[in-house]
Amino acid sequence: MRTVTFGEIMLRLSPPAHQRFTQAGSFDACYGGGEANVAVALAQWGLEASYVTALPENELGQGAVNALRRYGVDTRHILRQGPRIGVYFIENGASERASKVIYDRAGSSAAAAKASDFDWEKILAGAGWFHFSGITPAVSPEMAGAVSDAVRTARRMGITVSCDLNYRGKMWTVEEAKAVICPLMADVSLLIANEEHIRTVLGIDTLDLPREDTNLTPEGAAEAAARLHARYHIPYIALTQRRSLSASDNRVGGVLWREGETAASRRHLVHIVDRVGSGDAFAAGVIYGAQTGLSLAETAQFAAAACAFKHTVEGDFIAADAGEIAALAGGDGSGSVQR
Amino acid sequence: MRTVTFGEIMLRLSPPAHQRFTQAGSFDACYGGGEANVAVALAQWGLEASYVTALPENELGQGAVNALRRYGVDTRHILRQGPRIGVYFIENGASERASKVIYDRAGSSAAAAKASDFDWEKILAGAGWFHFSGITPAVSPEMAGAVSDAVRTARRMGITVSCDLNYRGKMWTVEEAKAVICPLMADVSLLIANEEHIRTVLGIDTLDLPREDTNLTPEGAAEAAARLHARYHIPYIALTQRRSLSASDNRVGGVLWREGETAASRRHLVHIVDRVGSGDAFAAGVIYGAQTGLSLAETAQFAAAACAFKHTVEGDFIAADAGEIAALAGGDGSGSVQR
Amino acid sequence: MRTVTFGEIMLRLSPPAHQRFTQAGSFDACYGGGEANVAVALAQWGLEASYVTALPENELGQGAVNALRRYGVDTRHILRQGPRIGVYFIENGASERASKVIYDRAGSSAAAAKASDFDWEKILAGAGWFHFSGITPAVSPEMAGAVSDAVRTARRMGITVSCDLNYRGKMWTVEEAKAVICPLMADVSLLIANEEHIRTVLGIDTLDLPREDTNLTPEGAAEAAARLHARYHIPYIALTQRRSLSASDNRVGGVLWREGETAASRRHLVHIVDRVGSGDAFAAGVIYGAQTGLSLAETAQFAAAACAFKHTVEGDFIAADAGEIAALAGGDGSGSVQR
Amino acid sequence: MRTVTFGEIMLRLSPPAHQRFTQAGSFDACYGGGEANVAVALAQWGLEASYVTALPENELGQGAVNALRRYGVDTRHILRQGPRIGVYFIENGASERASKVIYDRAGSSAAAAKASDFDWEKILAGAGWFHFSGITPAVSPEMAGAVSDAVRTARRMGITVSCDLNYRGKMWTVEEAKAVICPLMADVSLLIANEEHIRTVLGIDTLDLPREDTNLTPEGAAEAAARLHARYHIPYIALTQRRSLSASDNRVGGVLWREGETAASRRHLVHIVDRVGSGDAFAAGVIYGAQTGLSLAETAQFAAAACAFKHTVEGDFIAADAGEIAALAGGDGSGSVQR
Amino acid sequence: MRTVTFGEIMLRLSPPAHQRFTQAGSFDACYGGGEANVAVALAQWGLEASYVTALPENELGQGAVNALRRYGVDTRHILRQGPRIGVYFIENGASERASKVIYDRAGSSAAAAKASDFDWEKILAGAGWFHFSGITPAVSPEMAGAVSDAVRTARRMGITVSCDLNYRGKMWTVEEAKAVICPLMADVSLLIANEEHIRTVLGIDTLDLPREDTNLTPEGAAEAAARLHARYHIPYIALTQRRSLSASDNRVGGVLWREGETAASRRHLVHIVDRVGSGDAFAAGVIYGAQTGLSLAETAQFAAAACAFKHTVEGDFIAADAGEIAALAGGDGSGSVQR
Amino acid sequence: MRTVTFGEIMLRLSPPAHQRFTQAGSFDACYGGGEANVAVALAQWGLEASYVTALPENELGQGAVNALRRYGVDTRHILRQGPRIGVYFIENGASERASKVIYDRAGSSAAAAKASDFDWEKILAGAGWFHFSGITPAVSPEMAGAVSDAVRTARRMGITVSCDLNYRGKMWTVEEAKAVICPLMADVSLLIANEEHIRTVLGIDTLDLPREDTNLTPEGAAEAAARLHARYHIPYIALTQRRSLSASDNRVGGVLWREGETAASRRHLVHIVDRVGSGDAFAAGVIYGAQTGLSLAETAQFAAAACAFKHTVEGDFIAADAGEIAALAGGDGSGSVQR
Repeated sequence: MRTVTFGEIMLRLSPPAHQRFTQAGSFDACYGGGEANVAVALAQWGLEASYVTALPENELGQGAVNALRRYGVDTRHILRQGPRIGVYFIENGASERASKVIYDRAGSSAAAAKASDFDWEKILAGAGWFHFSGITPAVSPEMAGAVSDAVRTARRMGITVSCDLNYRGKMWTVEEAKAVICPLMADVSLLIANEEHIRTVLGIDTLDLPREDTNLTPEGAAEAAARLHARYHIPYIALTQRRSLSASDNRVGGVLWREGETAASRRHLVHIVDRVGSGDAFAAGVIYGAQTGLSLAETAQFAAAACAFKHTVEGDFIAADAGEIAALAGGDGSGSVQR
Repeated sequence: MRTVTFGEIMLRLSPPAHQRFTQAGSFDACYGGGEANVAVALAQWGLEASYVTALPENELGQGAVNALRRYGVDTRHILRQGPRIGVYFIENGASERASKVIYDRAGSSAAAAKASDFDWEKILAGAGWFHFSGITPAVSPEMAGAVSDAVRTARRMGITVSCDLNYRGKMWTVEEAKAVICPLMADVSLLIANEEHIRTVLGIDTLDLPREDTNLTPEGAAEAAARLHARYHIPYIALTQRRSLSASDNRVGGVLWREGETAASRRHLVHIVDRVGSGDAFAAGVIYGAQTGLSLAETAQFAAAACAFKHTVEGDFIAADAGEIAALAGGDGSGSVQR
Repeated sequence: MRTVTFGEIMLRLSPPAHQRFTQAGSFDACYGGGEANVAVALAQWGLEASYVTALPENELGQGAVNALRRYGVDTRHILRQGPRIGVYFIENGASERASKVIYDRAGSSAAAAKASDFDWEKILAGAGWFHFSGITPAVSPEMAGAVSDAVRTARRMGITVSCDLNYRGKMWTVEEAKAVICPLMADVSLLIANEEHIRTVLGIDTLDLPREDTNLTPEGAAEAAARLHARYHIPYIALTQRRSLSASDNRVGGVLWREGETAASRRHLVHIVDRVGSGDAFAAGVIYGAQTGLSLAETAQFAAAACAFKHTVEGDFIAADAGEIAALAGGDGSGSVQR
Repeated sequence: MRTVTFGEIMLRLSPPAHQRFTQAGSFDACYGGGEANVAVALAQWGLEASYVTALPENELGQGAVNALRRYGVDTRHILRQGPRIGVYFIENGASERASKVIYDRAGSSAAAAKASDFDWEKILAGAGWFHFSGITPAVSPEMAGAVSDAVRTARRMGITVSCDLNYRGKMWTVEEAKAVICPLMADVSLLIANEEHIRTVLGIDTLDLPREDTNLTPEGAAEAAARLHARYHIPYIALTQRRSLSASDNRVGGVLWREGETAASRRHLVHIVDRVGSGDAFAAGVIYGAQTGLSLAETAQFAAAACAFKHTVEGDFIAADAGEIAALAGGDGSGSVQR
Repeated sequence: MRTVTFGEIMLRLSPPAHQRFTQAGSFDACYGGGEANVAVALAQWGLEASYVTALPENELGQGAVNALRRYGVDTRHILRQGPRIGVYFIENGASERASKVIYDRAGSSAAAAKASDFDWEKILAGAGWFHFSGITPAVSPEMAGAVSDAVRTARRMGITVSCDLNYRGKMWTVEEAKAVICPLMADVSLLIANEEHIRTVLGIDTLDLPREDTNLTPEGAAEAAARLHARYHIPYIALTQRRSLSASDNRVGGVLWREGETAASRRHLVHIVDRVGSGDAFAAGVIYGAQTGLSLAETAQFAAAACAFKHTVEGDFIAADAGEIAALAGGDGSGSVQR
Repeated sequence: MRTVTFGEIMLRLSPPAHQRFTQAGSFDACYGGGEANVAVALAQWGLEASYVTALPENELGQGAVNALRRYGVDTRHILRQGPRIGVYFIENGASERASKVIYDRAGSSAAAAKASDFDWEKILAGAGWFHFSGITPAVSPEMAGAVSDAVRTARRMGITVSCDLNYRGKMWTVEEAKAVICPLMADVSLLIANEEHIRTVLGIDTLDLPREDTNLTPEGAAEAAARLHARYHIPYIALTQRRSLSASDNRVGGVLWREGETAASRRHLVHIVDRVGSGDAFAAGVIYGAQTGLSLAETAQFAAAACAFKHTVEGDFIAADAGEIAALAGGDGSGSVQR
């Protein structure tokens, strides 16, 4: 089953190690973006994945294509047009100092693309799954239109649709997000989200639910999913849970709800190498579980392990095969040298 | 005497050593722009220099300010506003492979600034010299207006105005450049340019003049300057001469013409470390000569030496004090270890 | 209000990452010194700061000047004379292995300067605050004389004097320190110190005071300050508190005492990127609070936050604006990504 | 038209810059091998290319696959089996010091593969061109068998066969090479080689032919090709010409002979960044010309330009699109900055 | 007293920082191997140490010799012969992601050496101690024979023999190890091992012994040693204890048993920079204690401190003098800056 | 035959690549000094070499010892005492920009050593050759005394003495040098020098001798040597010849004169990676030729080849075995890849 993901991939520039922006004499460079990260994870785990976006015809656009191809992602449907690749700068935090992001994505080829530039009938031909995140429609009204077209086409073609809710306050207001996102929920078969976003964007009340360590308890999360299901009839809901102890240490996990059945992963205490893309790794993990027939409990452990594992890998893309994730999901988190 | 220079400073990103864009896993980062480079050179050579531009309020804008301050440039008149810092990517060529530039400067804080944002009366108070290049008015019509305002104000305040013609075909057409640049010439006391640009932008016929090694001979260059003077009445004209043998080796020099007097530098054969900013170093050299009372012949040697020296220094900014340039101008180009 | 700080700035050389001295094939280079670090912090936080020292006329001396200018410090009063810049080598520890310092500062331009080389009337003209640390007079008897001159001149001109006690056993004996430091206390309006140094250098008995986690309790610290005040009549006393759990993890905070009023910061658990200069950041924080009218409680939190923040920044200089410190002082230490 | 190339790809490890092996504290790493280099060049130039080899199932094998995919090479037919990836260490020479290679390829997955492991009917289905070099059969007798199988199968399927003669004295004797290579010539439609190898391996007398600068003159090279054709009936012969002035500077070019017609490229003087793979770039250039319908003269210029261009690119793989090569082939070797 | 150690030293290649193998564009390079690591530690601690192995005559073999000489190890008895140096690739884990090793040591000069290539009479002349690990005989049957020859010769010459048991499942089966290792125990005077290996290889039942934190309690470890002594009559037994909390944090210590006397070190909580070679540092610590006359309790603390210290040092070799280890053994693990 | 060399070894710090001092954010670090460089060359070429100096007991002193041991130099006679290691900073020039050196060697352990600290009877026991350069006595009067002691002792013990004249104007005046150096000549059996130094320091008139390309012709050099011999009766004289075309390109060679016989090497055109230590490589080459029985002509070629080769190697130390030098001496300077 081929999965198509759709969004914006950016050039990512980071000062080395823990340098601050104003100290940097060089930037480590890679490429990343939520849906690209999902495609890369799935391709590495042995599934077919295509990524769709718009990139300029210059070498930086080519660099993004090459980065995706390197990990086996199909890039045939990427449009090569428009003025520039979006850029984001990220400074790696430590201890109490948070990582900091400067977005420089305005006027990118993705933002400048027209909804009609994407021929979804052709792109989705032969695919079985379509994935997008809440960042994609926030890029521009045309991209929002493209997402809407894609979702409608996918549904018509019998293709499963998943969405990672991912609200970004720097890109649009909650009201704008609601107006675009909520109507899409009717066609979504799998929603990945965190508690805060289902409350603010989808309007689900979660403040009364039981908590531990600032996150909802597994039971609370299950109840939140049930309320979400009651409102939007989404059959499969995956809630991520994160506790930021510091910029160096987080605790992460997830709770899945599928048609009334629930499963919670164990919580991973992660010492952070690079936190970016860990939510995408979780989303990819849920999709992987669904496509390869894992049980709900196995899927919860796999997705949480993918999320935890990503924290130890530099760059937006996870670099790990499915066996490594499965081993961590299965409980080997001792970090003993493999030799 | 304080010199004010005005233009756009960008974040410059280069793949390390001779890597190509598509190979790069990191970018060396510095800041640069024609008029900033001139200010930095003058400040290092012991003269007072202020730089004027618009930069965003984020850390990348601060990085540019810090880079200028580091070399002693006055940054008080820089506007901190607007959406983003312009960026340019440059790949370092070698042998027959040319260096390649990708501009990503659209929508920068400089491009978004209004002409009226710059209070030239205040900025130029106490200054004795104003310098701009042909790149500045090409940034946007508002920046063209700001240059025009600055030149007019400078002239009214009795401040000397210099211009480095520097036509950039990627930024505007020859016709657009002509319409903006030619009227400014009436107020310019020193013009720095190469033969091609005085022909295409200022309309001076040079094709009939004597040449050697593709460049005009010193006599030819003097005649070209004389023709230019005849048309625009600019009292002081400095013509740069460059022969690109390869991306690794160039031959550079210059010819000065001041109210009929001429002087030609010797030609320097340079093995290139970083060619960017070498024209700005030449311009700064001419300004330095004028402000410190060098003879025309000394100035020609100093400016050409500054230009040659810059080819050996990484980054847009020259890093050299006036004594080092003077030593090379004086003839010590043997490169013997100083110990 | 302009602050003048006075001391020695050195070239700092560190093996990359966690390499040991004997393994190093390169050294990361920056510049630092207690009072320079304070000036850099204040300048970044929007206050005017001048730094005074002696540096050689070579490129390494210029490098130190440039490093200060980069962050907006006024360097006009730095003497350019003498034989060499002081150097210190520092190896970055980890876990139970301590960071190690090799000082190579003997015979530096600062050590070779004469007290009479510094014209304090001129340097302090227009200033409102003078700051030095206990390291400055330890550099040489002449530097001790210069500190004494400066303090006396400042007092006469009505300029506030602050001192960071900072006793360094490798530079002089306790007896030598006492003989120089104690007489200066009469003119000091703000003293920053830790418990050990007020006991050994200033002779304040603190061993009977209540403790937690090896440090004095807030009440104990307040009592120590009161005893110190009783002896030296210093109106404002700031005590730093540090618990070294390992070379990788420390707990830090501070207690302020001002004319009987006390305030204790919360304790920050810091995962260390670079510990050097964190005491200077604390001192700068107290000075910042005093100059910008923060309450004593706010100042305690700001200073401790500056100290904690510095542990996450490479180099001697803090790189952070006042807003970032204030945010951490205000309680956001979760390290969540800012995007 | 899809091209299939077959050989061994190795992990390449080089001390940084000009360090010697015994000085190295790190190695720059990439992947390369003659036939892989050809596939990468063709894929970048917009043609379809598949690469066939055997690589271990570990991460280093995966790294090689990823490196190929990054540039768009089809890797579906790569066998993932056997003990290890071959490694070669290369030290970058300078001036009179030659670059030095240490091969560590014994016992590699390619060397351990059986001829019968490769199913040529399936691999070559749909392909139009098959390319190998004289290195492939030198890897092991089984690889020699595989080449023989492939060539026979290709011929049967009507697929064009090209061979880059490339004799390596460290891998086998001239006699061994002759016994394997000469019989293959009957099925080769395009042979790329240098004069020395056609003399030693293919037995063509060239010592009496006219020379300049140690290489054969164009006329001499054409005569050599004619003699080669007379013996082996190969319809298309491409002879490379190289003059090693030093490890830093070479002069390169080529002469083509096709059914009596000849064409010589101009000679490029190259300042070397990385010389490895430049012969493969030449071979790819000839294949590119043949597949895209360039004239013989255009092909000679394109292939020589590809060879010259490769000298400026780090790593085994060329990084350049067809337009860049064509521009250099067309005569723009001035290396002027493109901006 | 000169110590001779015998084994295989390999070129070690690691992706920088926390990069994964498939991400690496370069590898940090050093040399290491269990017995070489012991020799380097002893030499740095002021004892005489010789290392014996076989290395190829090329520059990589020379690099290994140079690395050993750098730290003062006598390399006169190293054979320079055979085809290649063994290589191992190691990827540095983090958090729950384990470090990963790819061995590429088949066919190395050590593996290809004959037992008879080593002239033990000559090598051991003048030595007082011989040390090997269980890895050495696992390299090849000939190396197993060489170990056997060496042990027998040493015993005959009255030289103390120590063995670090170190079973490696990737190199041979438990049965193979038993057949070779058990007979050697009769001549071993000091055995270093962990609980798992004495159970699986030497057949000592330890599963019934008391535990804490997955390791045996000190009493349990002493009883295990007593059982081992009862079976093999080894006079001195050192048991290492490790608890892998994650790839980033371990807890380590050791228990010594000598003719009935026991001593347990304190447990060190280590934040890991580089874990490889920490067991060798422990072994070297025990040998150091024995040769320099430390008490059993002092030796336990010294060996555990060496082990803990090694975790903070990059590379296989410890870089620390005896005084640094002794200071940590003596209790100063606070990691306070030494200045 | 063991050679003892005597001088000062320093920590050398260089900005990476072609960075200027004021741009440097790190320094590449190695160790070097004229006589140490000679010892390292001889040891690598298979001869026994001891190096004598004074170094502090800290890690930087140890680093120097380790660097020497790494290449096989005997370091037993190095004194570990005194305050600091001398440091020199060197910035790598390019094209017309010369390399620049900042010495920071005042007050070093070598400068602080007493002549009587060196027990020459013991140091020279068993040695056959003693070598020093004109830099050593320039370090301090005590070091001058030590040189004098050493030369006298060597002569008494029948040990050959060689001297590399190497006058450094930054260290002492010509008059000071003359007073110390000239008396030593009576005991020198081999003098290495350039024309300028034999004229200025030893007072040999050479201005009337025939020249080409600024250097003396071989005949002129021979005549200069003959005059030198006539004055000082030195039996063996080696004159180096260098033409600095630029900081990137030099032409080097040498002329030997031994008891009337002369030999001139061919001239090498070198493209410079690192020029430092190339004179020492020449000196080592002459000593090597003398000790291994090369003819005078062979020695001239070997020494010049060593000198040329060194220009391609980073750091003060040459890294090359005798075979590599001999190959270049024998004429293979084409720089063809060795594979």
